[in-house]
Amino acid sequence: METMYFKDGKLFLLDQTRLPEEVTYETCATYQDVAGCIRDMKVRGAPAIGAAAAYGMALAVLANESADRDEQTAALKRAGEELLATRPTAVNLRWAVERMLEKARAYTGSPHEMAGALLAEAEAIFREDVTCNERIGMYGQELVPDEARILTHCNAGALATAGYGTALGVIRAARQAGKKITVFADETRPFLQGARLTTFELMKDGIDVVLITDSMAGYLMSREGVDLVIVGADRIAANGDTANKIGTYGLAVLAHAHGIPFYVAAPLSTVDFRLESGDAIPIEERAEEEVTHFKGRRVAPEGVRVWNPAFDVTPRRLITAIITDAGVIHPPFKEGLARFG
Amino acid sequence: METMYFKDGKLFLLDQTRLPEEVTYETCATYQDVAGCIRDMKVRGAPAIGAAAAYGMALAVLANESADRDEQTAALKRAGEELLATRPTAVNLRWAVERMLEKARAYTGSPHEMAGALLAEAEAIFREDVTCNERIGMYGQELVPDEARILTHCNAGALATAGYGTALGVIRAARQAGKKITVFADETRPFLQGARLTTFELMKDGIDVVLITDSMAGYLMSREGVDLVIVGADRIAANGDTANKIGTYGLAVLAHAHGIPFYVAAPLSTVDFRLESGDAIPIEERAEEEVTHFKGRRVAPEGVRVWNPAFDVTPRRLITAIITDAGVIHPPFKEGLARFG
Repeated sequence: METMYFKDGKLFLLDQTRLPEEVTYETCATYQDVAGCIRDMKVRGAPAIGAAAAYGMALAVLANESADRDEQTAALKRAGEELLATRPTAVNLRWAVERMLEKARAYTGSPHEMAGALLAEAEAIFREDVTCNERIGMYGQELVPDEARILTHCNAGALATAGYGTALGVIRAARQAGKKITVFADETRPFLQGARLTTFELMKDGIDVVLITDSMAGYLMSREGVDLVIVGADRIAANGDTANKIGTYGLAVLAHAHGIPFYVAAPLSTVDFRLESGDAIPIEERAEEEVTHFKGRRVAPEGVRVWNPAFDVTPRRLITAIITDAGVIHPPFKEGLARFG
Repeated sequence: METMYFKDGKLFLLDQTRLPEEVTYETCATYQDVAGCIRDMKVRGAPAIGAAAAYGMALAVLANESADRDEQTAALKRAGEELLATRPTAVNLRWAVERMLEKARAYTGSPHEMAGALLAEAEAIFREDVTCNERIGMYGQELVPDEARILTHCNAGALATAGYGTALGVIRAARQAGKKITVFADETRPFLQGARLTTFELMKDGIDVVLITDSMAGYLMSREGVDLVIVGADRIAANGDTANKIGTYGLAVLAHAHGIPFYVAAPLSTVDFRLESGDAIPIEERAEEEVTHFKGRRVAPEGVRVWNPAFDVTPRRLITAIITDAGVIHPPFKEGLARFG
């Protein structure tokens, strides 16, 4: 089951809003279709969004295959802007769009072959992400003791990436190294990525997983049921401050209070070296209906006010280590990350 | 809108599982009906459960009105045992059942008038709870600054009690004292008492309320949006350790980390002087379906393992003060509570 695949000039995106009940793919014939799927969270997870956006950029040129170089460049610019506007927090989206624009700038062939070149670049981004996650897993699994009880939040798995996963990649690698693992998956309101996706992925791989509500994590820790917490990231500032799915910050505070290691697993493409600290990371606020409704059914009173930030920022002091495709980075993160900046 | 009322020999319980969409009452003709409603959380909230159980005890004798004293005593004992077995954590249930048994023991009239005497006692328990909550409100509101932004969890309101509420009683009293209040209501998974009940109650009273998911509380605090946290309690040990709805402990850790006062509001009948500390409080674990399903629709994969504790225990060191109907108790709680034991 692939997160996405490109075939016959179209991008097929696994519709993650319908999992685990239905495995269906959305067909994206245009970059606007891709932008819509990202906005509606049919594809989600920072690395997966990046890869989808890269394919979207290729689709923008594919739609202008017979245009001249200037027209193609203008189409790419428009597509990039629209894709970037879909979701503000994850930086991999910008990283992928900029890599595609750079590829287009450096391209010296004929205009009618540009689409093929960009498609190859999108494929490369997709494939590299799997390799990258395998590397994250390889480095990260060394931090995982045998018989570890691991708490994770949201879904930083194969579904959030091109495959294998970041946080769940570390868990997969630990398992492949012969370690016995029990995972506790926060259900992750309001979108339930933990309940719907993380459990689904881990059960398919035969990894022991226990579903809890987000509110149970503290009590679980207090009963000494957690050896480490591992989460993904949507954007990491140059100093190590990390934006990730809403609830991550609370988990990090709880882990700190219980003396439990708290790890962030993410590719280096998630690090935004332009931002000094997490204060500057834009936090997306999403529609009230995500909180007030459940599968189309209202659960809160009509007209209730809602605050629905999709992410929060965990300050570097609460992070034990950042596990990247280049290795495990320990504090001080600014210096550690700068080696790869 | 009453949480419950007794009429024509039957107890009518507001079905809280159907709020806020529908305001309907369950008719309880027997104590078994009452036990069923408590078990299924149609009536919930420690004080409301206590009052409902008291009426249930009266119903047990009403069904044996023409029996002799011994038979009535046996019926009461059976009813008490069955009612106590419904939910293990809230101590008000035991308190109410024991008060009814004591009333029966002390009763010296004729057997056929016993039901009336017990019904009057149940009515007294119900009415006293409202007065008690008004006192909690009166004492507690002194701790609330003007323009306070208050975070609460679950529903410790009129719906959880005979009326007025404990935690929400404090908020109501602060409002009545002319203070401007904004309440942030945790939705409180898995049962959504915050999303369904707390917002509903506060909106009806015209009190400003903002709904958030449980996972947003930490981020809200880190942005300095919370002046105090106030919650109810299901059982308080003699040393002040407090069992309350799952997620309360995590909130208390977060409040502590942010230097935000954390208050527990509860009647003295919630204090279990027989228990030295919270370690001895039994924590109910409920059905997996409460987490895996939403209004009958599955949201997690078939066969997933679930941990669903309904309560957690907050250690006394994380509690700023306990607001009771006898006044505000500050640490050391053991000594403070003992004055009323």
